[in-house]
Amino acid sequence: MMDCKNALTEAGGDGAKAEEILRVKMGNKIGKLAGRETSEGTVQAYVHATGKVGVLVQVECNTDFVAKNEDFVDFAKDLALHIAASPQTKYVTEEEIPQADKDAEARVFEQQAADKPENIRPKIVEGKLKAWYKDVVLLDQEHVNGDKHDGKTIEQLRADLSAKTGENVVIKRFTRFAVGE
Amino acid sequence: MMDCKNALTEAGGDGAKAEEILRVKMGNKIGKLAGRETSEGTVQAYVHATGKVGVLVQVECNTDFVAKNEDFVDFAKDLALHIAASPQTKYVTEEEIPQADKDAEARVFEQQAADKPENIRPKIVEGKLKAWYKDVVLLDQEHVNGDKHDGKTIEQLRADLSAKTGENVVIKRFTRFAVGE
Repeated sequence: MMDCKNALTEAGGDGAKAEEILRVKMGNKIGKLAGRETSEGTVQAYVHATGKVGVLVQVECNTDFVAKNEDFVDFAKDLALHIAASPQTKYVTEEEIPQADKDAEARVFEQQAADKPENIRPKIVEGKLKAWYKDVVLLDQEHVNGDKHDGKTIEQLRADLSAKTGENVVIKRFTRFAVGE
Repeated sequence: MMDCKNALTEAGGDGAKAEEILRVKMGNKIGKLAGRETSEGTVQAYVHATGKVGVLVQVECNTDFVAKNEDFVDFAKDLALHIAASPQTKYVTEEEIPQADKDAEARVFEQQAADKPENIRPKIVEGKLKAWYKDVVLLDQEHVNGDKHDGKTIEQLRADLSAKTGENVVIKRFTRFAVGE
């Protein structure tokens, strides 16, 4: 509320301008939230009933209070379940993919698009790269339990949880073991 | 029993010799068991009640029948609990330790033993290396639940399970996550 008032004062009573100022201010706040170092958190696991697949995840936040929060723990458990059902997942973020691997994929996609008009080739390659990210990058994937999570991506669920808890939420790492691998 | 009879026949009725032949034969069998490739198995997890530590393990055997056996699954679960309580564990076997790391440790122990008589130095270094293995090598460790497991090492428990199930039991891999690491 203080931010709203300040924004209105700064905008000299101009509602539209106040909203703009507010968005800039809130944007900074969200940015700060995202950057806050996480040292607390939870480790959770999911093992399929068959015992053939298991996943371990570590999700971090800022305080032990939130780490013990039911929503936070449930997010981590649901994340482990999602990864168990998504064997192609390799990275948490796009940034984790080695540049050489990105370049190699892009080269393949460029060759696949070689018979398409030159002016639309970059768009085709970009589309294929995005589809590939969805395969291998956890944050880009829609949660496998779409009914429960309204078809949201892991990143959206993470951001929702961050907003709800008021803390930075970071998926730090995961491991997936499967029998026969 | 067939092996006993065959051994007695081969030994021409000589009991002691029969036992010797039997041990050679059984030794080969145990050797074969240990060498049999494992492709079945189970993945199990342990997460501490605080949610601050979690472990994922993969244990392999030869058939899906044994993989679903209660003793086998319990072994994997107990193993995960042991690793959760043993943060210094890094390897399953001594063979997994990089030779450079072994050499580096040995050099430190040699220097630590430099003021001891030369003839007993190698024994001291050997003893210190063994103690270090117990720290970092899973199979060399006594199970943390000594009461339940009669103070046996993980390797002894593994061998017991192998004998009981008649299959090769291999601890394939493990991962341990802890909040703050």
